[in-house]
Amino acid sequence: MPDKEQRPFGQLIPYEEALSTVLKNVHPVKRKESVDLDDAFQRVLAEDVTSDIFVPPFERAAMDGFAVKAEDTFDAGKFDPVTLEQTGTLHAGDAPDEEVGNGECIQIATGAPLPEGADAVVKVEETEKKDGQIAIYDPVHPGENVSPKGEDIEEGERILDKDMSLTSARIGSLAAIGVQKVKVYEKPKIGVIPTGDEVVPVGDELEPGQIYDVNSHTLSSVVRNNGCEPVNKKVVQDSIEGLKKEIENEVEEMDMVLFSGGSSVGDKDILIDALDSMGEVIFHGVKLKPGKPTLFGKVKDTLVIGMPGYPTSCLNTAQRLIKPALRKMSRLPKSVERTTKAKLQKRITSSLGRQQYMTVKLDEDKAMPVYKQSGAITSMSRADGYFEIPENVELVEKGEEINVTLY
Amino acid sequence: MPDKEQRPFGQLIPYEEALSTVLKNVHPVKRKESVDLDDAFQRVLAEDVTSDIFVPPFERAAMDGFAVKAEDTFDAGKFDPVTLEQTGTLHAGDAPDEEVGNGECIQIATGAPLPEGADAVVKVEETEKKDGQIAIYDPVHPGENVSPKGEDIEEGERILDKDMSLTSARIGSLAAIGVQKVKVYEKPKIGVIPTGDEVVPVGDELEPGQIYDVNSHTLSSVVRNNGCEPVNKKVVQDSIEGLKKEIENEVEEMDMVLFSGGSSVGDKDILIDALDSMGEVIFHGVKLKPGKPTLFGKVKDTLVIGMPGYPTSCLNTAQRLIKPALRKMSRLPKSVERTTKAKLQKRITSSLGRQQYMTVKLDEDKAMPVYKQSGAITSMSRADGYFEIPENVELVEKGEEINVTLY
Repeated sequence: MPDKEQRPFGQLIPYEEALSTVLKNVHPVKRKESVDLDDAFQRVLAEDVTSDIFVPPFERAAMDGFAVKAEDTFDAGKFDPVTLEQTGTLHAGDAPDEEVGNGECIQIATGAPLPEGADAVVKVEETEKKDGQIAIYDPVHPGENVSPKGEDIEEGERILDKDMSLTSARIGSLAAIGVQKVKVYEKPKIGVIPTGDEVVPVGDELEPGQIYDVNSHTLSSVVRNNGCEPVNKKVVQDSIEGLKKEIENEVEEMDMVLFSGGSSVGDKDILIDALDSMGEVIFHGVKLKPGKPTLFGKVKDTLVIGMPGYPTSCLNTAQRLIKPALRKMSRLPKSVERTTKAKLQKRITSSLGRQQYMTVKLDEDKAMPVYKQSGAITSMSRADGYFEIPENVELVEKGEEINVTLY
Repeated sequence: MPDKEQRPFGQLIPYEEALSTVLKNVHPVKRKESVDLDDAFQRVLAEDVTSDIFVPPFERAAMDGFAVKAEDTFDAGKFDPVTLEQTGTLHAGDAPDEEVGNGECIQIATGAPLPEGADAVVKVEETEKKDGQIAIYDPVHPGENVSPKGEDIEEGERILDKDMSLTSARIGSLAAIGVQKVKVYEKPKIGVIPTGDEVVPVGDELEPGQIYDVNSHTLSSVVRNNGCEPVNKKVVQDSIEGLKKEIENEVEEMDMVLFSGGSSVGDKDILIDALDSMGEVIFHGVKLKPGKPTLFGKVKDTLVIGMPGYPTSCLNTAQRLIKPALRKMSRLPKSVERTTKAKLQKRITSSLGRQQYMTVKLDEDKAMPVYKQSGAITSMSRADGYFEIPENVELVEKGEEINVTLY
């Protein structure tokens, strides 16, 4: 009975199959660039990093006190100090030029280089100035209160590996060896292209029949938050020629192309036809709710994805299917979600045969569904997180404990 | 016995007390600014947002099909269709100018405005073109397959509240009502000032006795990642005059000031004296490992914090004490850590009387400590996360299950 001009979906594929297909078809970025150390946070290293220096670069005092020959202190005791002659003072940053001889000591600050001749530091608490001499009340062994040269990092040591993402601590390791510029992978470029004759940019005045472009903005934030760079384009009108021209331009420059808008099968037809004639359609329709009408194709080895038009469907699909792809492309580690357990406050029925994501608002350990209807972006924006209802579950009872993934 | 020129710590205070003192002394930022919608992700709303429009702005088709008067379809059946005359076609973006009369229908795409006279949409799958007429095989009730005007957002409805942080979905809600500029709170400005005569900036050549500035870079990344803006300053040499001048400048312009470097008590003395003479010292020394030598004071209502000099101590203190303060200042929600359970692969002894953070590397559910020594930034940069050993625990056995907080 279907009208041939408007095609329904083909066979919906399960979410897991869609995800593995997407991941199989995206490739980690290979292009590299150099960035300043302070811009490298959360970027991904494009080379192993080996140290040219020792850290610390010299043997240094680990405590404030006096640099000594340890053997000079062996006879010291709480009530029977040994006395040494202070021949100098070393602050952090000083280059030592004096040697510590037998019976001598040099006052030293934490972090200052240990002078020649000394092999230990007596803590200041165990000493006393007495008639111009230094009384030592506790013996030290060689090496005591001294940080050896290279204690943290040896010269020639590999401190970080290619493909590591740069945490605060790793930024710190790079700083410790004096790195100012870091070789990282470029951020993959993702074309974000709104489509639909009814869609207009925010800031414009709405004419009758028009709505604002929501998906470009939500998609850009997901793209940016997962190590990639969104390249936002103007709205493309629903014509096969316009779409083909746009795809031709984009696949040259982008690592992935996301079309959004065109809210259902009717509009998708044009994208299907464009992909069919320029490359291939890989799948169309996923057992995901919200998020069924996703179209996934390839032109010249670049993925071209038609996202669902409804804002919640588009965003849920972005988080379930596109985010893992973005992280693979940008070489970021898989995202570990933050979850919490809560008691569902309302009985929920679900669609058999589609993996459903239900948004909830949390009040301590109580979870209240905030689902409005499939198009309603407000249902997601009021939510604190969501829980999954598997494909084969139709009903979740009030009071049941659920696992909420936090936004 | 202590040498009066180098003071030891005062009474160490418990971590929880230090944290609550820090939080009591920082205030959420009040300054506001307008930013572009696409720059507003993860920023904090500085005003309630109320919609000027309905979303959708008009009654529209929720399916591809035919706009009809529902009553015209009541007699339709699978083998006994009713036939209607198609008087037009409406695409998304069209402004409807024709009315649907009795016995008539208009072909309509998902998202197109419902024409006058129509009150329902028959899905395209339930129709057939037949001799220029449209056969309807299934009755619809009024409102079926139609999204009412304002279904998602009503005109005048408050869609987001002041102090909400902007997730992807909230960005989407703002786009849905056409917002181009968003009023958000400014990022609090945090002065990050390296101190120490031995500390030189990355990129410089090291002279004897010198080390690279690590803490400015790790602190900046923590500051930036928690909604604040680091303002990096040049190394301040260890002199009371230099320090006082720096503090005077900074407390005028910054919301908080972090001094780092000056690795221990000796160097801290200068900062203590400066704070004593210009404002007040609130505490000095926390039962935290790594991280004991933290100095916390206030000058003219601006917090001035002396961070520990050792990179790991500095970073651990930043994550435990400074991060919650930054999030309170920037009005971001408390950070929810991601955790996983693992089995400790090595027996660990800890310092009684200090809350200790032990870094570990994970191999599935096995956790191997990667602690080197207190100064070693590499022990953190190789780690996947850490676990806490409470103040009153001295020993964690090999094989024990631990809670690992992931980086």
